[in-house]
Amino acid sequence: MTTDFGRETLPYCSFIGAGEKRPRVGVGVGTDVLDLTAAAAHIVPDRASLFADGTLDGLLGAGPTVWDEVRSAIGGWIDDPAAARHMSPATDVELVMPFTVADYVDFYASEHHATNVGRLFRPGAEPLLPNWRHLPVGYHGRAGTVVVSGTPIRRPSGQTGEGTFGPTAKLDLEAEVGFVVGTASSMGEPVAVDDVEQHVFGICLVNDWSARDIQAWEYVPLGPFLGKSFATSVSPWIVPLAALDGARTAPPLQDPVPHDYLRAEHPWTLDLELSVSIDGTVMSRPPFASTYWTPAQMLAHLTVNGASLRTGDLFASGTVSGPEADQRGSLLELNDNTTFLADGQTVTISATARLADGRHLQLGEVVGRVH
Amino acid sequence: MTTDFGRETLPYCSFIGAGEKRPRVGVGVGTDVLDLTAAAAHIVPDRASLFADGTLDGLLGAGPTVWDEVRSAIGGWIDDPAAARHMSPATDVELVMPFTVADYVDFYASEHHATNVGRLFRPGAEPLLPNWRHLPVGYHGRAGTVVVSGTPIRRPSGQTGEGTFGPTAKLDLEAEVGFVVGTASSMGEPVAVDDVEQHVFGICLVNDWSARDIQAWEYVPLGPFLGKSFATSVSPWIVPLAALDGARTAPPLQDPVPHDYLRAEHPWTLDLELSVSIDGTVMSRPPFASTYWTPAQMLAHLTVNGASLRTGDLFASGTVSGPEADQRGSLLELNDNTTFLADGQTVTISATARLADGRHLQLGEVVGRVH
Repeated sequence: MTTDFGRETLPYCSFIGAGEKRPRVGVGVGTDVLDLTAAAAHIVPDRASLFADGTLDGLLGAGPTVWDEVRSAIGGWIDDPAAARHMSPATDVELVMPFTVADYVDFYASEHHATNVGRLFRPGAEPLLPNWRHLPVGYHGRAGTVVVSGTPIRRPSGQTGEGTFGPTAKLDLEAEVGFVVGTASSMGEPVAVDDVEQHVFGICLVNDWSARDIQAWEYVPLGPFLGKSFATSVSPWIVPLAALDGARTAPPLQDPVPHDYLRAEHPWTLDLELSVSIDGTVMSRPPFASTYWTPAQMLAHLTVNGASLRTGDLFASGTVSGPEADQRGSLLELNDNTTFLADGQTVTISATARLADGRHLQLGEVVGRVH
Repeated sequence: MTTDFGRETLPYCSFIGAGEKRPRVGVGVGTDVLDLTAAAAHIVPDRASLFADGTLDGLLGAGPTVWDEVRSAIGGWIDDPAAARHMSPATDVELVMPFTVADYVDFYASEHHATNVGRLFRPGAEPLLPNWRHLPVGYHGRAGTVVVSGTPIRRPSGQTGEGTFGPTAKLDLEAEVGFVVGTASSMGEPVAVDDVEQHVFGICLVNDWSARDIQAWEYVPLGPFLGKSFATSVSPWIVPLAALDGARTAPPLQDPVPHDYLRAEHPWTLDLELSVSIDGTVMSRPPFASTYWTPAQMLAHLTVNGASLRTGDLFASGTVSGPEADQRGSLLELNDNTTFLADGQTVTISATARLADGRHLQLGEVVGRVH
């Protein structure tokens, strides 16, 4: 399915044109892709080299002043008569992985998700662990198996208990929002919670495929490993944070008041409604704005120990689940740990940003078929 | 301190010569560094481009046939009169990060370490968790903060409990052996336990710095995160597996018998004696050969779910601890969770490979000073 991005979102992608071999940087305009690698000479001639390699890596590393300059120049140019020559229908091109993933971090930031999982795995006990309301719990995932939407997902095998080995019987999806880091930071220098816009370029949608039986057997005490590392799918479209200014909204109240380094001057999250479908049937609509920890808090926490950021770092929210039964972002929660993905099923995660002025923006979807 | 590598180890490094800016690939010959980026035109003219960027990335990706060809050609050339022109004392050059780390995985493969830690954190309970003897427990670390020996280590701050935030009071070292992946593999295709030499190029020493108080508060349920991600130091010298053929020895017996995918035809580990010093005083001598899970088992497990390998992947053993009190590879174990690193202290981890013929080979050390 092609998303209609209208003329204000201007998301970025990397694509390979029909009959071509090398990727080009694209911009979504309506249902077309603008070939920015070619058109940059007209739009932002001084910045054209940023797009020469066909990935977003150059733009990501260029920093917020350049991000604004390029976005503004594209917006001012797409109605130029010369623009049509550089547009192709998105259906005519192949969308490929848009940037080089440096480190991949996955959080566990949804209170509803963490509570649902806690109830399932520790029935009768307090569902949230003692640290959960004090810090955004997270862990590092495998950057090398982050793949673009459309990549077929092979059912992984692994140990699922003492003496048992075989294909996972509990292959799950996780609907998440991902944040793509542009500007790097230095080791030893935490990024302040109010500086998130200096570092985060934009967002994508993430399906953090999970093999629940492999994960359950392996994860104590060092966390998820093979239950997650076989594949993580991302949408091919990176929507700049700048396009989502109108979708900013207040995050949930936090109790207890978080530590200073997690306290933003003006806390915000994004009003995104995710949609999770299997073979075209909508299973749930998780509301991202219900996520307890904000993107800025995730970034501040990730770096508070002095860990540096690199261009291309990706951090994801963890499964987004809302308070209602039809707002859960994983089958584990939707089906009470009973029914999971079958071979041949296709999972699609899409999202709509709801702007304060009533308009809606579509984000690019992330799709994967299990085999 | 300069290590004397003799003329048979021929470890690789990346170095910057006096007055230069760009790195070059080097080979350790005695206490000298051979400038392979320059000398390759004489030694392996057809392969010279592999060394042009001054890192090991090209060689790593070239695969085992080329690794053997280059190593053999260097060995046959270092006594050529022309070689002297390309040698510098190692003390005259700056050793830099020798390869681009793709993903970093850390295991927990030492039975003595896992048992010691289990006793400290779960007194009275069975020290090893139920999964421990069935699979090499591991997790992903932060690739972006893997730094070369000599990089100063800043004491990280973080949450250490409800309402507490500040510099870690429990900064620890972890003496580990790291394995550098050369040949990539494809998603969906596990690497067989007997194919480790097709993928692993060589080894380095690793100090996986840990903030025990940060780690203890954050790590349930998703594993270590900020307690580890601030820095991981590696030795600048990568010793090819081929140099260590004579150091192969039988690993510990495994009970229960592991799953098929973890069962090698001829299991081996390496007879390496590590040495951990603080400010020049030897604290312990952990024997790597006592590590329960072998390097080949770690690699087979890492990929059994279909996770792909990339050139530059680094996987480490986890803390190496032997059965004796003076063979423990972390201060947590050496000092019973009481005394940790002070600012200004310098940690040095070195190692000797003991060959079956009685010779000893030095590995390059990994050093870091806390500030």
